[in-house]
Amino acid sequence: MKKLLLFVAVLLVFGCKQKDQVPATVEPSKPALNELQTKVTGLFGELPLVAENQNNPVTEEKVVLGKKLYFDNLLSKNKTESCNTCHNLDTYGVDNHQFSPGDKKGTSGGRNAPTTLNAALHFVQFWDGRAADVEEQAGGPVMNPVEMGMPDEKFVLERLKADKDYPGLFAKAFPESKDAVTIENMRKAIGAFERKLMTPSKFDAYMKGDSTALTAEQTEGLKLFVEKGCTSCHMGNAIGGSMYQKFGVYGDYWKMTKSQKIDEGRSLISKNAAEKYFFKVPSLRNISKTYPYFHDGSVKDLKEAVKIMGKLQLNLDLTPQEVDKISAFLDSLTGEVPAELKNK
Amino acid sequence: MKKLLLFVAVLLVFGCKQKDQVPATVEPSKPALNELQTKVTGLFGELPLVAENQNNPVTEEKVVLGKKLYFDNLLSKNKTESCNTCHNLDTYGVDNHQFSPGDKKGTSGGRNAPTTLNAALHFVQFWDGRAADVEEQAGGPVMNPVEMGMPDEKFVLERLKADKDYPGLFAKAFPESKDAVTIENMRKAIGAFERKLMTPSKFDAYMKGDSTALTAEQTEGLKLFVEKGCTSCHMGNAIGGSMYQKFGVYGDYWKMTKSQKIDEGRSLISKNAAEKYFFKVPSLRNISKTYPYFHDGSVKDLKEAVKIMGKLQLNLDLTPQEVDKISAFLDSLTGEVPAELKNK
Repeated sequence: MKKLLLFVAVLLVFGCKQKDQVPATVEPSKPALNELQTKVTGLFGELPLVAENQNNPVTEEKVVLGKKLYFDNLLSKNKTESCNTCHNLDTYGVDNHQFSPGDKKGTSGGRNAPTTLNAALHFVQFWDGRAADVEEQAGGPVMNPVEMGMPDEKFVLERLKADKDYPGLFAKAFPESKDAVTIENMRKAIGAFERKLMTPSKFDAYMKGDSTALTAEQTEGLKLFVEKGCTSCHMGNAIGGSMYQKFGVYGDYWKMTKSQKIDEGRSLISKNAAEKYFFKVPSLRNISKTYPYFHDGSVKDLKEAVKIMGKLQLNLDLTPQEVDKISAFLDSLTGEVPAELKNK
Repeated sequence: MKKLLLFVAVLLVFGCKQKDQVPATVEPSKPALNELQTKVTGLFGELPLVAENQNNPVTEEKVVLGKKLYFDNLLSKNKTESCNTCHNLDTYGVDNHQFSPGDKKGTSGGRNAPTTLNAALHFVQFWDGRAADVEEQAGGPVMNPVEMGMPDEKFVLERLKADKDYPGLFAKAFPESKDAVTIENMRKAIGAFERKLMTPSKFDAYMKGDSTALTAEQTEGLKLFVEKGCTSCHMGNAIGGSMYQKFGVYGDYWKMTKSQKIDEGRSLISKNAAEKYFFKVPSLRNISKTYPYFHDGSVKDLKEAVKIMGKLQLNLDLTPQEVDKISAFLDSLTGEVPAELKNK
């Protein structure tokens, strides 16, 4: 009897051990993640290759058309500007100006042009969220008098219809449309193109299991980024872009940024005092390259921006060493636009 | 010459000192605020007596009508429920149920009924923000099949028009309307009433300058509330209600709340993956009285809720002493509904 019990016990122990070693739910091909990797994968998550939208499925034909539109000066009144002028894909989807010059000489916008890279992942578009998605956003600047300055939709459509290539490209991209050259389809094509402007970086390799993808300093910076609470706002796979937040939880932002104008942000369109000074939390992907910072491009230096964020949003006096480490981590968020989406 | 210089120096010193003592910008009638009072007045700000809305000016006539509607069972199909049934003004604008029972026996809603007190200050209404303001919200539950269950707008209007008092009260409240008994006017009247459901508390007295309005423990709790970062979300004069935030920045909320159902929050209506598990940050005014907590009323105890918030939103293990102090501060946010707005 004793021997039988011992045999059963041994069987159980070995049975269990074996089960522990190869649990049914873990695919053996995936590399093991360390504790920090597991944690940050939960907080952020990998970048998709395409930011899908069920209302505008991304097809090759739409992307071909969208790419042509994105780089075409035809969409601005004086034929001097394209989407790419302010959202230059050779410089991480921005022009690095504080405010972008418009199609009309001497005019410029009132807010810093955000990058189009990974923007399709944001929960809303523009600094104040006045467009729901990249499709809705895509038409905005075309008709904005201080941006591309097209007088009206009719004018835009006439230009596109008079072109030798566009009618055919629109028809191919939107075979279900009787008259395919429409503003809505133009928005959809540019939107589909932007849905592919995803820039995976070393940080994604790190989350996928390559713990050497970040340097020691970057790993320290990532730890600080999580511990200090930056993730309360900069979360999700765009590391931001998923919520509005008050710029200046712990003080008036303009006192630290030296902003020339006090911009009340979202409350200007929502007419709601509770949203005074609220802006969309920007994505931090490619942030090292998309200077100057904040809605008004008031700060040029990344480390200065990190320091200001710590103070204004978290009431923290980050030490220069902490700022250095966090900035090093932010460098790991720089990726590359897929070559086939670039101009020529 | 030396004497003259001395005279000038004395003059300057005294001149400056006098200027320092009575600066031109401070009204002498206002009590001096200490450092913490100054800080928190900036972070939160005093409660107004009326939460004004330029699209629906609050008039006495609208409030009289809105109050009658708020307490009237006529607005539910089986005449068993009013707004006050779930948002009871005798119990701080809630019913303290996890999910409120509806007009139809045996049915109940899927989210915890939030308080109507101070709700007019929120930037949007409902846990998921699907109504822009209290006017838009006011009609929602009336027609919701598991709430007040009225079959359609026509049915509501017929009931109101058949009543002996309502046609006259609507006409008085909306003299500019030809046919005043409309759903829009019903919403506006209830909204106007709710815009007066403001409950100033000891904390407002504290912000106004009475530093003895909070106990020593409450003051300690207030300091912790600010230092620990609770104010990153619970800000403004409603101490919340100004933004959406992910419930569970640092972990799955249902693992701590033991929620029976995983509710994805805002993404269910925005269809945007970036907003998965996002809910409106609730106001903390009267929070001690508006248990149970969270969108699903999954936690009954305030201290437990504070502890969960610290862990899930800020990655902090608050000590029992810290939880006690913060909860004591939260007690100071309990106010009173103005007597004339209560039933009878």
